[in-house]
Amino acid sequence: MTYTLGDLAAKYGCDLVGDPDIEILGVASLISASKGSISFLTNESYLNQLKETKASAVIINKKFIDSCPTNALISADPYYLYSIIVELLHPIPKFKPEISKYAFIGKDISIPSSTYVGPMSSIKGNVSIGESVYIGPGCIIDGNISIDRDTRLIASSTIVNSVKIGKRTTIHPGAVIGADGFGNVKTKKGWKKINQIGDVVIGNDVEIGSNTTIDRGSLDSTTISDGVKLDNLIQIGHNTKIGAHTAIASSTAIAGSSSIGERCMIAGQVGIVGHIEICDDVRINGAAVVTKNIKKPGIYSGSIPFEEDQIWKKFVAKFKLSAKK
Amino acid sequence: MTYTLGDLAAKYGCDLVGDPDIEILGVASLISASKGSISFLTNESYLNQLKETKASAVIINKKFIDSCPTNALISADPYYLYSIIVELLHPIPKFKPEISKYAFIGKDISIPSSTYVGPMSSIKGNVSIGESVYIGPGCIIDGNISIDRDTRLIASSTIVNSVKIGKRTTIHPGAVIGADGFGNVKTKKGWKKINQIGDVVIGNDVEIGSNTTIDRGSLDSTTISDGVKLDNLIQIGHNTKIGAHTAIASSTAIAGSSSIGERCMIAGQVGIVGHIEICDDVRINGAAVVTKNIKKPGIYSGSIPFEEDQIWKKFVAKFKLSAKK
Amino acid sequence: MTYTLGDLAAKYGCDLVGDPDIEILGVASLISASKGSISFLTNESYLNQLKETKASAVIINKKFIDSCPTNALISADPYYLYSIIVELLHPIPKFKPEISKYAFIGKDISIPSSTYVGPMSSIKGNVSIGESVYIGPGCIIDGNISIDRDTRLIASSTIVNSVKIGKRTTIHPGAVIGADGFGNVKTKKGWKKINQIGDVVIGNDVEIGSNTTIDRGSLDSTTISDGVKLDNLIQIGHNTKIGAHTAIASSTAIAGSSSIGERCMIAGQVGIVGHIEICDDVRINGAAVVTKNIKKPGIYSGSIPFEEDQIWKKFVAKFKLSAKK
Repeated sequence: MTYTLGDLAAKYGCDLVGDPDIEILGVASLISASKGSISFLTNESYLNQLKETKASAVIINKKFIDSCPTNALISADPYYLYSIIVELLHPIPKFKPEISKYAFIGKDISIPSSTYVGPMSSIKGNVSIGESVYIGPGCIIDGNISIDRDTRLIASSTIVNSVKIGKRTTIHPGAVIGADGFGNVKTKKGWKKINQIGDVVIGNDVEIGSNTTIDRGSLDSTTISDGVKLDNLIQIGHNTKIGAHTAIASSTAIAGSSSIGERCMIAGQVGIVGHIEICDDVRINGAAVVTKNIKKPGIYSGSIPFEEDQIWKKFVAKFKLSAKK
Repeated sequence: MTYTLGDLAAKYGCDLVGDPDIEILGVASLISASKGSISFLTNESYLNQLKETKASAVIINKKFIDSCPTNALISADPYYLYSIIVELLHPIPKFKPEISKYAFIGKDISIPSSTYVGPMSSIKGNVSIGESVYIGPGCIIDGNISIDRDTRLIASSTIVNSVKIGKRTTIHPGAVIGADGFGNVKTKKGWKKINQIGDVVIGNDVEIGSNTTIDRGSLDSTTISDGVKLDNLIQIGHNTKIGAHTAIASSTAIAGSSSIGERCMIAGQVGIVGHIEICDDVRINGAAVVTKNIKKPGIYSGSIPFEEDQIWKKFVAKFKLSAKK
Repeated sequence: MTYTLGDLAAKYGCDLVGDPDIEILGVASLISASKGSISFLTNESYLNQLKETKASAVIINKKFIDSCPTNALISADPYYLYSIIVELLHPIPKFKPEISKYAFIGKDISIPSSTYVGPMSSIKGNVSIGESVYIGPGCIIDGNISIDRDTRLIASSTIVNSVKIGKRTTIHPGAVIGADGFGNVKTKKGWKKINQIGDVVIGNDVEIGSNTTIDRGSLDSTTISDGVKLDNLIQIGHNTKIGAHTAIASSTAIAGSSSIGERCMIAGQVGIVGHIEICDDVRINGAAVVTKNIKKPGIYSGSIPFEEDQIWKKFVAKFKLSAKK
């Protein structure tokens, strides 16, 4: 199925500037676009790329229309419209249901005929798999695990112990969900492990990035609510609760028993110590260290931008000197 | 086997307040406990939860007994007693020895009949496996590897090149042990890799978290001593030595050739540069950057807690301004 | 094949001090060396180890020759010469080509007879594998993937969606290449995923560390150029470009759409926000937070070294107080 620019304008109720009959075959960036591509401008700093684009059309805010060298779809939110059109023209590929002969499925586990299980995946324990679930190659599912319909494990993820995953959730490769948390008690002979017996509950429409780790609760649940988006290499400690529609960027670490509100945005490399409560609608900028509760929505920061080494050394020297006074 | 509260008091030599005949079936948190559960209080900030608990009993310090609405086991160290009772009532499940038909075992490798090897695991090379070792699904063991008795690889961990693992050690999913360290020498044509030929030696009673990486030594050993506890997503560079009973929290990175003492506690997101020596009994708080040796036991810190963004921006401006004076 | 010290001196054009006929069997560190070992000194702080070494010979800069208790190979760059000799005496083991019966190879994929594919690996999709490629156990290759000759996937790495890998590149265990980037657009109902349709292009002679993640481009490519060396647990966000011969240490996170120049050295735990451009020949010290473009080669820093906790607390208090004035 192909679309003209006019089709897209009609479908999404947009104004159109230029030729409605031009055919749109795919989405591309301003720089790499060619005939048949639609591109988009969301960031003023790419205006110079706009001028050079070879796209057949560009999704653009009205205010930049004079800089546009080609046909345009006008949108108040070009980034959102782009996301819709990329989904239309480049949908996530459908899969053909199959259970690979190179997968292992434990006895008494029933896999719906609408499901895919790839080679080198192993599913055992007390496992329930919903309709149209996609379990890519190399996934390990082991324990009391339920995965609800339309959820996708792309490849090589590991779900262990006791985990419940909702609908339409995506888990990227290398993610580890349900492993024991870091619970130890100090004794005279060293650390004694505290057996971890809780679970992980993951909602609907969640995304979990590559090599992210989500530990099971120590006694209760670690909870990832509906619509949460987690980037790669994130640590979610045991008993943590993450509220609906919160997004967290790469390499952030959340220690145990913290509770993050809804619709929060947490940038990369943030550290959140244990037993913290963060309310809804909080934004935390990159590399901040959060050591106490946040009770008021708003923006919070905690990192000092870099400098040339010589200048930075002076900062550090003054910082340390002033405190010694 | 079930226990009454009186049984537990007798077994652990505790005072008991309330009904000794009440039956204790499991451990639960104050909030989620119900009839048959024993809970615990270790942190004053949960006193309000204590008042609402539906637990049949609570492990508690004598000083809080007046706030306890139910039966109590009195302990000077409720967290420790909790760890003992959770182990009693919720032991780590025993496994049935088996070598899955879906595992690959290289020729000439002898696997004791007390051992479990799960589906999609591959064991090849010059490998020695001790009695009662548990190798969960999806584990890759490849090289000169020895794993001593009662050690457990939960799932999906990768042990390569040259690695020796002690007794009763637990390795969580996604951990990578024995891969080449980051050794390169600068040349006019770019970086030249330095072949890594050392090994990793891991002691007894160690715990290694999910997706943690421990590189082999460049020539000698990377050493993780007895009783060390490593959380998730930690980087241990080549030639690093970690002393007995040291615990390290998530997302900390230790560059090559550093030596950490015994009984240290290193919090999350700490960075330790190469060739550092840290003595015994050092505690390092979260996100500190350690750039020189630590020769004296004690507590060390290095991160500045976050603030509201508007306030933080002023801090940063003043910091940078003051240094320019 | 064995070598005398004289052979090595002749082969590499070095001066030799001592006995040319002594046999050199292997490389070892100063501390662990014994008869038959050659060791090296690159760092003055190891002079005390030099004095105690039992090595048969040491690679050393002329200026330290008086401290050397044994035979010596003289080099202006001992670290480089060490890297050459370790490669000579301890080459990366050659592998015997084989396709394990415990691997899965999709229909219509042709694997050269010079290639190795280990147990529990799965190769499917539109995949092209070059001559003498080594695919260790537990690797998952799934999508439009090409891997050029002499490249090695050590074990358990995951290459998905659309990825092109050059020649003589090494990928360590747990690395995830080609997974979706973190692209979401905010809507009234929460975050909407933006389908990711780009690819990853990796050059020749690249090294990618354990559990490092490299996301596919959103529309175009994420690019890792020739000779790039990435350590463990690094995050490379979508659309990032890394210039030739740049080296990045562990746990650094690079958000999306940034461009790093050639021959840069980025230390551990550095954070680089999105849409940043960094020119060639930049060195960034550990844990710096890079929030704007770097247009000038040089050294940049951004972390404050730790202190004893009591002193650090004073720093923090002064820092916060001064800004409130």
